Parts: sequence; structure tokens; C-alpha cells
Amino acid sequence: MCEKIGMECSGGDKSIAAIKTLKEAGPEDLSFFHSEKYIDDLAATRAAAVILDGRYSGSLPEGVVALETDEPYVKFALATALFAHRFETGVNKPDIGEGCRIDPSASFGSNVKIGDNTVIMAGVYIGDNAVIGNDCLIHPNVSIYHETRIGDRCIVHSGSVIGADGYGFATDKTGRHIKIHQIGDVVIEDDVEIGSNVSIDRGALGSTIIGRGTKIDNLVQIAHNIVIGENCLIVAQAGMAGSSRLGRNTVLGAQSGVAGHLSLGDFTVVAARGGVTKTLEGGRTYGGFPAVEIGLWRRMQAVLMRLTKNKGR
Amino acid sequence: MCEKIGMECSGGDKSIAAIKTLKEAGPEDLSFFHSEKYIDDLAATRAAAVILDGRYSGSLPEGVVALETDEPYVKFALATALFAHRFETGVNKPDIGEGCRIDPSASFGSNVKIGDNTVIMAGVYIGDNAVIGNDCLIHPNVSIYHETRIGDRCIVHSGSVIGADGYGFATDKTGRHIKIHQIGDVVIEDDVEIGSNVSIDRGALGSTIIGRGTKIDNLVQIAHNIVIGENCLIVAQAGMAGSSRLGRNTVLGAQSGVAGHLSLGDFTVVAARGGVTKTLEGGRTYGGFPAVEIGLWRRMQAVLMRLTKNKGR
Amino acid sequence: MCEKIGMECSGGDKSIAAIKTLKEAGPEDLSFFHSEKYIDDLAATRAAAVILDGRYSGSLPEGVVALETDEPYVKFALATALFAHRFETGVNKPDIGEGCRIDPSASFGSNVKIGDNTVIMAGVYIGDNAVIGNDCLIHPNVSIYHETRIGDRCIVHSGSVIGADGYGFATDKTGRHIKIHQIGDVVIEDDVEIGSNVSIDRGALGSTIIGRGTKIDNLVQIAHNIVIGENCLIVAQAGMAGSSRLGRNTVLGAQSGVAGHLSLGDFTVVAARGGVTKTLEGGRTYGGFPAVEIGLWRRMQAVLMRLTKNKGR
Repeated sequence: MCEKIGMECSGGDKSIAAIKTLKEAGPEDLSFFHSEKYIDDLAATRAAAVILDGRYSGSLPEGVVALETDEPYVKFALATALFAHRFETGVNKPDIGEGCRIDPSASFGSNVKIGDNTVIMAGVYIGDNAVIGNDCLIHPNVSIYHETRIGDRCIVHSGSVIGADGYGFATDKTGRHIKIHQIGDVVIEDDVEIGSNVSIDRGALGSTIIGRGTKIDNLVQIAHNIVIGENCLIVAQAGMAGSSRLGRNTVLGAQSGVAGHLSLGDFTVVAARGGVTKTLEGGRTYGGFPAVEIGLWRRMQAVLMRLTKNKGR
Repeated sequence: MCEKIGMECSGGDKSIAAIKTLKEAGPEDLSFFHSEKYIDDLAATRAAAVILDGRYSGSLPEGVVALETDEPYVKFALATALFAHRFETGVNKPDIGEGCRIDPSASFGSNVKIGDNTVIMAGVYIGDNAVIGNDCLIHPNVSIYHETRIGDRCIVHSGSVIGADGYGFATDKTGRHIKIHQIGDVVIEDDVEIGSNVSIDRGALGSTIIGRGTKIDNLVQIAHNIVIGENCLIVAQAGMAGSSRLGRNTVLGAQSGVAGHLSLGDFTVVAARGGVTKTLEGGRTYGGFPAVEIGLWRRMQAVLMRLTKNKGR
Repeated sequence: MCEKIGMECSGGDKSIAAIKTLKEAGPEDLSFFHSEKYIDDLAATRAAAVILDGRYSGSLPEGVVALETDEPYVKFALATALFAHRFETGVNKPDIGEGCRIDPSASFGSNVKIGDNTVIMAGVYIGDNAVIGNDCLIHPNVSIYHETRIGDRCIVHSGSVIGADGYGFATDKTGRHIKIHQIGDVVIEDDVEIGSNVSIDRGALGSTIIGRGTKIDNLVQIAHNIVIGENCLIVAQAGMAGSSRLGRNTVLGAQSGVAGHLSLGDFTVVAARGGVTKTLEGGRTYGGFPAVEIGLWRRMQAVLMRLTKNKGR
């Protein structure tokens, strides 16, 4: 493996089962360290080997192989290619339950499982190893990538894409962006409805999760590794960046946005067009950009309006 | 019906033809009352029965059955399920006019009608009872849901979805969102062009209407029951919330938004990124969020800029 | 041709090969003049004929036929219809290289060429005369219009649409919008990745170009005749209006926007939600709307916040 990603490996070249984060990697897994934020995870990792800058090798637990490089994130990206899904095409028959209606123009990867009483309409694609529950309705021309799991009583409207690659790249010294192959998956729990032309990306490593009973409107962007709680409402054209979390019964208004790696507490409401740049306490309503409590945002607009009108006098 | 939606009905259980608003319901229809805004409609309704809070039963005209509940909107949502479209899949042949070119990979629901000289390209889906006019061009992988009506000389670009369910839910006391099945439809008048990856939702009850000669750019969101006049221009990534109306020759700039239940007069222009939160008089240009007359918005930005720069001195 | 677009032509009715801009038109081409911005191009054009207001006919080089009208842009729009692509449908076999995997439900226009080791998944449509390079991966339900050229090692995710018509209309005196048929094309260079539900429009005349190594996230809008340099990052839900240019390694943050006919220098960064209304110098970070240097925008927000809070005391 070291050869394929252009590295010399001190300590031998074990065979590797998967790439995982420092926290999740086990004794057969490769991991990587590229930010001091994760220094505690480094010291505690159970990984077989870690790609990292040589300055940090001393922090590794005993027995973990150091794969040293001055651009660990780029080498990690190159390593993900070794674990990328290999797309076959062709005609496969899914394993379907009772009472389903499957349109003849739907297409399936290998080893797809579909529960009872589910309707799969024209032009739908469902990728390798995906699992769809009971009583689902998948409208025409939906694309569901490999390994996606969808619960019971879910509805997905036309044009939506579940499980496409998250937007992950490591930029090398020349400014080239190296793809971080997205090895994770998507889990859609029961009773979720997804509007038309929605994009829900698979996890980079690990899962993107849409909680039970959550309803997503049209043209919404859900990036990789987002975790959305139960019964959330995500209104049209809202977008969330990677790894953010929504508590239960959170509302994201139309055309709102949430930056990456944030957490919004239960029952948070973000008003239409609000742009969230910080972790937010639940149970309150926020608006504006950068988003603040909605009353404050309204006062800010009123102050600016008054200053402007006074100026005219 | 009462049993299916978990209600006890005072006054008997008539058979019901449809669910309609208080205003539109006739003697065979069910209706519902969930907001005092509609109290005049309640007093004048011709519905067979109305789902409502018992406190308002006294306002009903004589002979109208009261279906009493403390959560009328949730019960209404449950009732819509009884009228939801039942999706069949399979291979149907549409009724096509002369001179059409229909790609062999297009799919059709039952009872689809297509006019003369229309081109239906690969992977297009057209649902039950939909009607497409003459001289239309439907590009690949467009999804047109059941009962949609499209006029003559319309163009729809790839990935667009016409007639998917509007975003309508009634939230019960536990925080669960109950689907309001979207029983309405979409009407696209003559000479309309729709860009790629556009989402136009069907009406909840009644129609979403796109007026003659209107041109819609890519990635636009048109929610349920919107009515757009003639010759409007809706630029890329704009979005409109439910039940709003645009007068003729209105322009919505790129990435603009219009909140629900508003009305924009003829020849209104909303600048790019404008966010409309109030009904607007026609013939003027608005910008900013919340949108105001564009000159005022520009002055507001200039005032804020000057205050900021003065501060630095 | 003059008859078809409802004009009388002084100077005869030559047969015309194409419609081009004043600058690019040669002795067999038709051109048009509708804005004084292009007066220098008018005086230097090599076109066979030019549609223009009669007041400007004197500026034409000798031998160029003047097609005089009081609404030149509308007449130009009508003329583009004569050169519009004619869509055939049906079953075509592409010319494919070695080692490809083509799903049986993919559809092809005539004369499509596909390189080696490329994967074309279910429900993909590739239009007439399109060319796809080696080692590409085109995910399910992607629509690639006629004449699009895609380089090597490109990835396109589901639901994306490449080469749909740009949003171009000429409005006549009655307020009707006349379609400017989009006669240009799209060029995607090597190593480009395009997320899901992205819309990239073909050029009106000439090409829309996505530079080598550029990575585009989900739900992004790229209008006609945009030219994007190498190694740019365009994050989810960003949008660019027509004819703008991005230098190399430019970043457009999530939900950002760039107005039309602008130029952003190499290594420009537009923060999430930034709205660019002016040409920007490269190597800097901008934010807010209208976008200014990010530090200034942050100070503006801080000033407004302080004014608002002081007011409450």
C-alpha cells in the first residue's frame, strides 16, 4: 500500500482492512493525523498504522506504525483510492419483499434488498448493497448510491440523489485537489420524506444520518457526515456543510445555511435565510447572517433603517 | 372515514367525494377549519362536513356536519391520506399526436395524452392522466407527476420535476409531522420554458399555475399553490414559498426569495438575492433582505459602510 | 432568412453559415449589434451581415450587409431559431473505447464518442456528437446535452445536467420573451469532478468552460459562457451568472453568488454566502453582499451590532 500512495513506510507494510478515523480505527485499520485538534485521539489510537508528519510520531502508542510524510492529508487522500467502491454496471435483480411494485425501467446494483409493499418508480437507480424498507415510495428518476440504508415508510421525490460522494479534497503543494474517496454511507431512518432534487452526500468515513420522521423539502443540500435528529424540518434550498448536527425537532428555514462542524440544540429554529456560523443553544429562534437571536437581528435591521432615513433629513 | 382518521363524528358519516377548502367545498366534500383567519369562510361553507375545534361548531351553517377534535389540522392531514394518488407502475402507452418523437426509454403512467410534434426524450417520466400540448420539447430525465397539464410550445430541461408533493405537514402534540397528502395539481400554460433541476410542486388542494410565456431558470423552487402570471422571469436559484402570487412580467433575480402567502404586483422586479417578506406594489424594484425599495437598500449599505470606515479614523 | 425573422434586408439575402458575435463572425456568418458597448467591434467586424438599428449602419465596414430593425436583439433571437439543434430520439450506439462499462439503460444521441475505461451508469443520457474522455465515471441519471466535450478522469454525480440551454431571452415591445436559442457548447477539461444536481449551461454562442482539476459541489448553478480556470473549488449551492470568469484556484464558498460579466483574479476566495457584484482582484478573501474584503465586512457587522446594543441602554 505504501508504494501505491508514494510513501516509504517505517515499520513494515501490514495489510490493511479499512481507513478509519483515529478514534474508530482498530488493529487492522489505517488512520491519519493532520490537525492538532486530534492530538488526544492520536495518543490513544488502536490503528495498525497512521499517516502523519514525522514530528508527531513520538505521540503514537507503542506498536502503531508511523507512515511519515510532510503532507499527511494528501497521502491520506491518495490512500482512500485503495478502498473506493468499484462500480459495476449491468442488469441485476434485487431481492424484493411482498406486494412491491417495481417499474421495469428501474435499475439495480448487486445485492439490493427491498422490503414489503414498496413502490419503485421509473428510472430509479439503487446501487450495490443498498437496503430499502417496507412501505416506501421512491418516485421516478431518484438515484440511491451503493450501501445506502432507508427505513420504513419513507418517501423520496424525483431527482433526489442519496449517497453521492461528499465534497472532500486534499490540496497538494501545487494547488491540485486530490480526491478523498468517500467510503462512508447514508442512513435514512423511518418515516422520512425527501423532496425533489435534494442532494444527500454519503459520509467520508462513517455515516450521514437523517433521523426518524424528519421531512426535507426540495433542493436541499446535506453534506457528508451530517447527523440530523428526529422530526426536523429542513425547508427548501437550505444547506448544511459537513459534519454538523441538528437536535430533534429543529427547523431550518428556506434558503438558510449551517456551516460545518456545528451543533444546533433540540428545537432550534433558524429563520428563512439565516446563516449559522456558530454552535447554537436549542429552543430558540435565530436569524440573519451571521445568525443571532431573531429579535436582535430585527433590531439591527431597524437601527440601520433608522440611521439611513435620518440621514436624509 | 371518521374511523380511519381516529375521530368520532357527531351527525353521521356521509360518504365524501373530495377534500376542499371551506370556500371551494360543495355538498359532497369534506373541509377543515384550523385558523381564525378563515372564520368568514366557515360561516359560509357549503361543505358536507368540517373538521374543527368544537368551540367553533356553532359557527357552521345549518346541515353541515361538525367533526370535532382538539387538533383539527392533524385530523385534516390524516384525512388527506384517504384521497392520495395510488401509484401504479408498469408499461403504459400514451395517446400521442402526429409528428411526435418519443424516446423508447421514456416511461408513462396510464391515460397520458401528448399533442402533435412534441419531443419526449430519454428517461422522461410522465405520470397518470398528465396532458402535454403540441410542439413541446421535454429533455432527458425530466419527471412530470400525475395530472400535470402542460400547454403548447413548452420546453422543460433535464432534471426538472413538475408536480412533486408540496411541503405540507401537520405537527401533532408529540412533535411528529403528519403528511398532508398533496391532492392538487400543476398547470403550465403555453410558451413556458423551465430550466434544469427546477422543482415545481403540485398544489396541496387546487393548482400551482405557471402563466403563459414565463421563463424559469435552473435550480428554482416553486412551492405548492403558487400562481405566477404571464411573462415572468425567475432567475436561477430563486425560490418562492407556498401560495404566493406574481403579477405579469415580474422578475425574480438570481438567488432571491419570496415568503409564503404574498402578492407581488405586475412588473415588480426583485433584485438578485432580494428576500421578500411583504406583499409588494408592482412596477418597482426591490432588493435586500428584508426587501425594500432598491434605492433605500443601497443607501442602507452605504450608511453602514461609512459608519464602519469613520470608526477606523 | 430575412423573411423567416420578419425583416426586410437591404443589400440582398446571402446564405448564412452561423450566427456569431461581431468579433468572431467571418464572411459567411450573421452577427448582431444591440449595445453601444460593442461599437468598436461593429466597425471592425468581418461578418457577412449584421442585424442592427439603422442609425448605426454607417459604422459598418464596407461590404457588410445591414439588416436594419428597431428591435435588433429580438430579431437576433428570432434568427437563432434557424440554427437551433434538432433533437432526434431513438436508439443509437456510441463509439466506445476499450474497458468501458456501459449500463444497458443509458441512452445516446447519434455520433457519441467515449474513451477507454469509462463507466456510464444507469439512466445516463449523452446527446448527439458529445465526446467523453478516458477513465471517466458518469453516475446514474446524469444528462449530458449534445456537443458537450468532457476530458479524462472526470466524475459527474447523479442528477447533474451539462449543456442545457442558457437563460437567454430578448423581450419584445409587448413584454413577450423571445428565446435566444443557445447554439454554443460546454467544455469540461480533465480531472474535473461535478457533484449531484449541478446545472452547467451551454454557451449562447461559444463555450462554457470548466478548467482542469476544478471541483464543483452539489446544486451549483453555472450559467452560459462562464469560463472557470484550473483547480477552482465551487462549494454547494453557489451560483454564477452568465459570462463571468474565475481565475485559477479560486474558491466560491457555499451559497455564494457571482453576478454576470465579472472577472475574479487567481486565488480569489469568496466566503460562504458572499455575493460578488464587481470584478475582484485575486489573492484575497471577500465576503458579504455586496461583497467587500472580508475584514471590512466583519467590521461592518460588528459596528451594526454595537450600535444596536448601545441603543438598548
